[in-house]
Amino acid sequence: MHASEVGTPALIVDLSALDRNLSLMADAASRLGVDLRPHAKTHKCVEIAHLQLNLGAAGIACQKASEAEVFVDGGVGDVLISNEIVGRDKLARVAELAQRATIAVCVDTVSNVADLQAAAEEAGSSIGVLVELNTADYRAGVATGEPVVRLAAEVVKADSLRFAGLQAYNGPAQHMRSYQDRQSSVAEVGRAVERSLSLLGREGIRCDTVTGAGTGTYDLDPIGGLFTEVQPGTYVFMDADYAENRNASDEPFRNFEQSLHVSATVMSRRPGVAVLDAGSKAIAMGNGLPVLAAETDGVFERFGDEHGTLRVPDDHAVRLGDQVRLIPYNCDPTVNLHDWLVGIRGEVVECVWPVAARGAIL
Amino acid sequence: MHASEVGTPALIVDLSALDRNLSLMADAASRLGVDLRPHAKTHKCVEIAHLQLNLGAAGIACQKASEAEVFVDGGVGDVLISNEIVGRDKLARVAELAQRATIAVCVDTVSNVADLQAAAEEAGSSIGVLVELNTADYRAGVATGEPVVRLAAEVVKADSLRFAGLQAYNGPAQHMRSYQDRQSSVAEVGRAVERSLSLLGREGIRCDTVTGAGTGTYDLDPIGGLFTEVQPGTYVFMDADYAENRNASDEPFRNFEQSLHVSATVMSRRPGVAVLDAGSKAIAMGNGLPVLAAETDGVFERFGDEHGTLRVPDDHAVRLGDQVRLIPYNCDPTVNLHDWLVGIRGEVVECVWPVAARGAIL
Repeated sequence: MHASEVGTPALIVDLSALDRNLSLMADAASRLGVDLRPHAKTHKCVEIAHLQLNLGAAGIACQKASEAEVFVDGGVGDVLISNEIVGRDKLARVAELAQRATIAVCVDTVSNVADLQAAAEEAGSSIGVLVELNTADYRAGVATGEPVVRLAAEVVKADSLRFAGLQAYNGPAQHMRSYQDRQSSVAEVGRAVERSLSLLGREGIRCDTVTGAGTGTYDLDPIGGLFTEVQPGTYVFMDADYAENRNASDEPFRNFEQSLHVSATVMSRRPGVAVLDAGSKAIAMGNGLPVLAAETDGVFERFGDEHGTLRVPDDHAVRLGDQVRLIPYNCDPTVNLHDWLVGIRGEVVECVWPVAARGAIL
Repeated sequence: MHASEVGTPALIVDLSALDRNLSLMADAASRLGVDLRPHAKTHKCVEIAHLQLNLGAAGIACQKASEAEVFVDGGVGDVLISNEIVGRDKLARVAELAQRATIAVCVDTVSNVADLQAAAEEAGSSIGVLVELNTADYRAGVATGEPVVRLAAEVVKADSLRFAGLQAYNGPAQHMRSYQDRQSSVAEVGRAVERSLSLLGREGIRCDTVTGAGTGTYDLDPIGGLFTEVQPGTYVFMDADYAENRNASDEPFRNFEQSLHVSATVMSRRPGVAVLDAGSKAIAMGNGLPVLAAETDGVFERFGDEHGTLRVPDDHAVRLGDQVRLIPYNCDPTVNLHDWLVGIRGEVVECVWPVAARGAIL
C-alpha cells in the first residue's frame, strides 16, 4: 500500500527517520554516560517502546497510572511514572502493577508517601519512589533543601517503598530557544540537585538515581555528572515547537529529524485558499499551529474542529483531493488524538501500530 | 456510585441540565417553525442523538464519513454530513451508508458532484446533496450567485443524486459577543441565501431546504423565514466560549445551562498553587483555557499535556486529593479526547455513555 492510499487525516511515521532518531539518542546517552529512559508519553505506542528497549533503554517513563498499565501489559518490565499519583484507586492500580514489573512514582508530599505505603502493603508489592524537585516553579515537586530530605526519610522508613532517587525535570528549559539560556537554566537546576544530594548524604540517605531531561536538554543535564538518567520523549518524532530551538552555534536545532507528519487532504479550494480535512480533532492546537512540510508552499492560517485553512500563493499547484503533510506544533497531544501510527519506508506502508495508550489519562 | 468516585480526569454530564437544554432547543425550533437537526459533532454519542430524535429532531448532522457511520450503525436513520467529502474511499463509504439510511452531503465544486454520482451509482444508492454557501469567507463553500445555480443544476442532472438544498452555516457569527453583531452578520447571510434561492427559482430548480445555524444564531437565522432547519450542537453541553456571548439586552448569554464539566483532582499543592491532573490530553486548549466551575475560586493559569496549574488565593481551602470541576473553553474537541461521558443526576452516577464517534476523523 502506498502512503497516499491511507485515509486522511492520519499520523504518518517515516520509519527510517524514526530509526535514526532512536539510534542517535541511544548513542548520545551512552556517550554522555547516562541511562536512557525514553518518555513514552510522546508515542504512547508499545512497539516503539520495544524499539527503544532493544537499543538499550533502561525502561520507559510515563505520566499516568493507566499509561503504565498499557506498557506493562505490553511487556515493558521497568516503568517510571514521572508524576505524582493521588487517590486510593489509582494508587491501588500502581501497587498492583508493581507486583509484575519494576514500578516507580514521584512524590512531593508526606501524606502521599503514607498513601503509597498503604497501597503497596495491601498489594504485597514494593514501589520505587522518587522525590520530585520543583524546578523553576514548573508544575509539581518540592523546594530544594529540607523538604527533599524529609520526604526521602519518610520513604526510607516505609517498609513497602524503595527510595529511588530524585526527579528533576527542567520543563521550562526544554523550549528556551537559545542554547545559552537552556544551559543557564540547566546549571541552576544542577545546583539545586547538588544541594539536595549533599543534604541527603549528610543524613546518610543514599541516592542512586537523578533523572530528568527532555529532548531540549538531554545533552546539557548530564554534563555536571549529577544526572544518572535522561527521559527525552519528543526526539522520536520531533515537532514544530522544538524546531524553533537553536543549537550552540545559534543554528536551528536539528539534532533529530522530523519523522512524524499528519497527512491531510485538500477538501475545498479557491483562489489563495486550500481547506484541509484536518483541524483540532486531528492536530493539537493548544500551543501553536502546525507547519507545512517543506514540499508544500503556504501557511496554515486557522482551524476549526475538522478544518484547517491554508493560505497559498494564487498560482499554487495544490489541487482539490491532493494530500499535504503537516508538522504538528506539539507531537505528544497530537498523537493522543489518533488511534494508529502508520509507519512508512520510502512511501510504502510497512506497519500500522496502535496508539495503545491513547486516551490513557487516568 | 457517587460522582466523586469517578476517576479523574473525566467528562461529567449533569443529566437534568442536559434534559433541560434538549427540551429548550426542541421547543425553540418548534416555536420558530424550523426543523431541528442537532449537530452530533459536539457529543459524538449515539445515546444523546436518540434523546434528540425522541424530542422531534429531524435527524442529525455530522462532519465526517466515519462519524456518519457510527450514528447510522447506532440506529439514526437520517444524517446530514454538513461538509464536503473528497476522495474515492470516503465517497464509497458515504454511498454505502446511503443504502441503509437517508444521507446527504455538501458540495462546493463540480468535480465533486461527478465523483459523488459515480460512487452512488456504483453502490446503487441515492445521496442527497446540498450546495454549501461560503458565508463570510469561513471555510469551504461557493460564492452566492451563478456558482450556486451551476452546482445545483449538476446535482439535478445526476441520476443517483438528489438536490437537497442549501447549507448556509454562518460560522463566524456564532461567537460574535454582541447580539447586534450576530444579528447583522445573520442578515447578511440571509441576503446571500435569498439571492441564491431567487436564482435557483429562475432556473426552475426547487429548493426545499435551507439549513445552517449554530448555538449562537439558532434564534436569529430562522427569523427571515428562509431557513427551514437549524443545526446547533453545543447547546447540549455549552462551554466557556459561548458563555462569553451576550444576549439582546447585553446580558450574558444563558439560554442554555453548562451541563458538561471535566472533573480533575488536585495532585500537588503549594501556597497559591493547586496542580490538577488534567492538561491538554483531557481538555482541548486550542482556543482558550478552561474556567473553574462556580464553586471553586481560582484561575486556570497554564497547562502541560497532563497538568493544569490553578492560581488560588493563599488561604484557599482546596486540598491535595480534592476534586474540582472545569468548564472547557470548547466542548466539541474536549469531548473528542475522552472515551466516556459519565451522566450524573444530583451527584449520583446514572449512566456511562461511550463517546462512540471519538476519533472518527476520516
